[in-house]
Order: sequence, then C-alpha cells, then structure tokens
Amino acid sequence: MSKAAKVTIQDIAHKAQVSQSTVSRVLSGNAPVAATKRTAVLAAIDELNYRPNIFAQSLASGQSLTIGVLTQNFGNPFYDGILVGILQTLEPTPYSPIFGDGRWQLAVEKRALRTLIDRQVDGLIVVGGLSPQEEILAYSRDVPLIVAAREIPDLADQCLFIDNKKAAYDATCYLIDMGHRHIAHVTAPMYYHGPINDIFQRYQGYIQALTEAGIEPDPQLVVEGDLSRQSGLMALQNLVASKRPFTAIFAANDQMAIGIRLGLYRRGLRVPEDVSLVGFDDEPTTAYLTPPLTTVRQPAIELGQTAAQAILDLINANQQPCDPFDTELIIRESVARRR
Amino acid sequence: MSKAAKVTIQDIAHKAQVSQSTVSRVLSGNAPVAATKRTAVLAAIDELNYRPNIFAQSLASGQSLTIGVLTQNFGNPFYDGILVGILQTLEPTPYSPIFGDGRWQLAVEKRALRTLIDRQVDGLIVVGGLSPQEEILAYSRDVPLIVAAREIPDLADQCLFIDNKKAAYDATCYLIDMGHRHIAHVTAPMYYHGPINDIFQRYQGYIQALTEAGIEPDPQLVVEGDLSRQSGLMALQNLVASKRPFTAIFAANDQMAIGIRLGLYRRGLRVPEDVSLVGFDDEPTTAYLTPPLTTVRQPAIELGQTAAQAILDLINANQQPCDPFDTELIIRESVARRR
Repeated sequence: MSKAAKVTIQDIAHKAQVSQSTVSRVLSGNAPVAATKRTAVLAAIDELNYRPNIFAQSLASGQSLTIGVLTQNFGNPFYDGILVGILQTLEPTPYSPIFGDGRWQLAVEKRALRTLIDRQVDGLIVVGGLSPQEEILAYSRDVPLIVAAREIPDLADQCLFIDNKKAAYDATCYLIDMGHRHIAHVTAPMYYHGPINDIFQRYQGYIQALTEAGIEPDPQLVVEGDLSRQSGLMALQNLVASKRPFTAIFAANDQMAIGIRLGLYRRGLRVPEDVSLVGFDDEPTTAYLTPPLTTVRQPAIELGQTAAQAILDLINANQQPCDPFDTELIIRESVARRR
Repeated sequence: MSKAAKVTIQDIAHKAQVSQSTVSRVLSGNAPVAATKRTAVLAAIDELNYRPNIFAQSLASGQSLTIGVLTQNFGNPFYDGILVGILQTLEPTPYSPIFGDGRWQLAVEKRALRTLIDRQVDGLIVVGGLSPQEEILAYSRDVPLIVAAREIPDLADQCLFIDNKKAAYDATCYLIDMGHRHIAHVTAPMYYHGPINDIFQRYQGYIQALTEAGIEPDPQLVVEGDLSRQSGLMALQNLVASKRPFTAIFAANDQMAIGIRLGLYRRGLRVPEDVSLVGFDDEPTTAYLTPPLTTVRQPAIELGQTAAQAILDLINANQQPCDPFDTELIIRESVARRR
C-alpha cells in the first residue's frame, strides 16, 4: 500500500480542526460546507498528500473501473495484438483491463473467467476460447460482454469476428488466378480450436476454391502444423518428403508461413520464383519478410481497439451492434504468376 | 456488475435461517459454528451462487491484489514481450497486473504513474521511462517497486537491466573477429531515451570495440533511425547513398535490422555474402529471417517474468537483490567471414 493511502479522514479532520463529517461533506461534494472550513480541509488534504481511495469509491459506486479480458496464450502474436489494441483504447479512459488466460483449455478458461468475474469487472471481453455458447450467453446476462475473434450465433450483435471461410476462399482463388493448380495447404488439427473452428473454416474455404475451379483437392497436399513457426518448418519438410509436386502454399496463419519461408530457404527454393506463398493474419513482421509476404489481413490491434470501444459503449448503455470485421488480401511479393 | 455479486450476507442469512453474524463466522472461518448451521449456510451460499466480494475483502485486508506496471508504447515488440512475461508469471497468483503507458513522454508517464498509485496497487514495476531517479526513489519508499530495462544507480538491488555497452562491444568485436573493418552502425538520436540512454550505450560499445582494434571510427558509417523497421529501411538507403564502403552493419535493435534486411534485398545485396548483419534484442521472429539473424539476446519475456517474481518477493518481504541481467550474442547465419 502506498504511504499516501494511509492518511485517514480522521487525520484530515485533526489537521483542519474540523469534524470528520465536515471532511466527508467536502470530499463527497454533496452537502454545503462553510467556505473557511472548506478551505481548511482542502489545505489539510494537500499538506497530508491525501489521495482519495479509488478502491473505496468504486466499491461505493458499484464500479471496479476494470474490464476483464479473457484471452488465449499470452505470447501468441495474434492474441497479443488484440490485447495491445485493448490497452491502447482503454488507456485514456478511467477503465483498466485485467487479463486472464484460457490457454485453449476449457478447465483453465472456466477458472480464468471465474477469477475475472470475482474481481467485479464492469465489463468482459472474451477473446477466442472454448466455453460453450450457453455459458457465454449466461455471462452476458450478468455483465456487459463482447466476444472477439469468435462467433457466438445467438450473440451476434456483441461479437467481432471475421469470415474465415470466405477469406481463405479469396486467398486460394488468387493463387488459382495466378495460374497455380498444385496448391498445398498447411492447416492445424481440427480439434484445435473447438467446435467453431476458424482454422477448419479456412481449410473449407481452400477446398471450396479448388473445387469451384475444377481442381480435384489432393489430400496429400494438406499437411498439419500446430500454428507455430517451428511447425511451419516441419510441415514444409513433410510436404517435400511427400514428393507431390506443388507450386504454391497457402498457410492457415502467418506464424506457419514464416516457418515455411525458412524451410524453403534451407532447401534453396526461391520465393516466389520456385514456390509462391500466402499467409493469414498480416502480422506486422510479414511486410518485412524477404520477399514481403502476401497474406490475409486480420488486423489484431484494430480488433482489440474495436472490442474495447464496444465494451465501453455497452457499459454506457450505448450499444451499437458489432459490424462483421472485414478481411483483405494484402498482395505483396511472395506470389508469382505461373505460366 | 455481475448478478452473482448482488447476493448479500443478509440474503444468505435469510435463506439459511441463521443470523448474519453466523454467516460471517462461516465465511471468515475464524470462529466456531454449529455443524448444522454451518451446513445450512454453505447450502444457501451454493444455492444463491454467492461469490465472496474479492474487492471488499481486499479493501478490508488493505490489498488490491493488483501490480501496477508502467511501460512505454503499447505495441512495441520489446516492451510487449516484458508485459507478456509479467502476465505469465502473475497468472497463477492472486495478483493481476494493471498497465499504464508512459509513451517516453515525461508528462504522460507522471500521469500514468499517478493513476496506478491511485488504484492502490500492491506493487509497482517501472519498465523503462524518463522519471528522474529521485522520483522513482520516492515512489519506492511508498510502494514495493521494481525497475526493469532501466538502471537507477541508487536502487540497484531493485533494478533489472543489462550492460548495453558491453553487449554492443561484444557484438562489434565478433564482426571484427570475422574480418570486417568497415562496419556501419544504425543507431537512434541521443535524446531518444533520456539521460541514461541504452541506445547511446550501444553506440559507445561499438566505438570502443573499433578503437581497441585500431580501426578509426568513420562518422559517415553511423546513421540514425527511430528504432522502427521502417527507419531501418531508410537508414540502409542513406548508408548506400553515402557511397562509403561497408561489409557489415550492426543495428541498435532488431526492428531496424529487419528493415535493413529488406533494404538489402531490394538492392540485390545478399546476406551474409555481400553484407553481414547483426541486430540487438533477439525478438522471436529473428530466428526465422532468411538467413536467421545473428543478434544480441536481451530476453524480453524472461525480463518480465523475473520482474514479476521480484515484485512478488518484495511484497512478501522476501527481497532478493536483483542480479544483473545477462545478454548473449546469438550467432546464427547473417554474418560471413571476410577474407
């Protein structure tokens, strides 16, 4: 506790030579106080370096001035980007975010949510996660709640999410338009992200684009990583080992694309002359890869900023239905036309 | 506010048909209660879904269970890494970090620190920043305080920092050992980080290594960026425009090294065959550049983890003097021997 916090109303009353109730009236500003007494109290407050106890004040007003943020895996660049956006947007407001980590494990997530609720947060931002829809709905009846990077159908107005299938479809169509026919896809196991699976939706978009273009999907050209850079490196090894020809790779996230890029470099395969590469997320570093990576923009920081603004609106009973979050294919230099 | 929070002790007493003081005795666990009454109270708590008000409890115990963290520029990869380390280490504890952003501006930093103190944080971690040493010392008398990524001489036992000059000296010596004589350095303006300037110390280490090796430092080979990737790209253009020959570049941080790498690629200069490159920080992505970057490891996440553990130790009156934080030159593939 700070020393300043130890100054009590009694100390102020003593110093100002007034009653404690006079001090309280000055502090609350709710009742008239004689000017001379008021001046004496303010001088004593100043002299004693008294800081009003924001904690006690918020308890009295029923506000904690905290926003609970449930995220997944501190250290993951995409989710950390969302946290940064939330921090940036809340910084000039009286609200501070309090973070919990669900680590993509239902039991851990449940406990983290419980801890946030116990801290009497004024609002809750749920980023990703595995909690069943009914539980999220139940929480949303107790506390203003925004969901980011996940779709909860019965809570659509409070969800910020992207159309993963369409974004992946667009990325794959771009590769097809550039003349590629043998397009590999690096995905993650289906059980990774629960029943509504963004990574699986990206796989579906990839399959749909191929099918519509009359290209038979080749299961051997679909390999699994775990969304990490390291797993991208391994996935590339597996692809090459399969001896199936391919001229392009669509990775389900940028982390894996970055690992694939290094794997290609290790084998002396040039990007894009030998192999074209497309990622997903548009992490800031991807613009500085050599060559700069063509990827689907899913702006994490903006997603966090929008979620923070949405929760403030909700707390202030000024709810705006959340718009679907647009993605965009950012065409850089990692895809070449195939003749 | 969550609905659950609105259950009062009175509600429980009513439901359990006992007195309020009985409920309090059960909740506090400090006084004997008849078994039947105890069972009735616990059943009522369960049925009403009562959650103890952690806020009121911490107020009573004089603890907020929050750790204030003053950082610089949400979104900066190095500082964000420290935040992630703090989040990871505090996650299994009852403490949550509350973040403030000083943005390398003294007035903004002052206000952010004031806001954290007003929130009655149980401890304070100051990451970087411009506050004069005396102010940090004054705060440290009021609240358990740890300083990360900055050296406060009179508070050495509570500071986690690295020897920037020595680390830069080692990196430059490595380039000299590899046969390089024309070594460029990309730095940042001296006013950037206040009086004790980590970037300036790196410049000094670079100069010392050259001088000791009998190489006259060439001011034309020292160019300034602003620590961003984009500024690394510009710095490389300026270096090339100067028409001074160079075979190696030591960048004062990885962000600029990443920009320099792209600049070299744009000009068809190969790394390391044409130009060797060394960074500073060891951001996670640098291991996946093509080629993987040789850089000075200043582990941001571990720095955050250590700072969080140190503040917990300090709060629990179990202070261990902070050890100097070691750096290490991580030799990857971006430096070639010069014949």
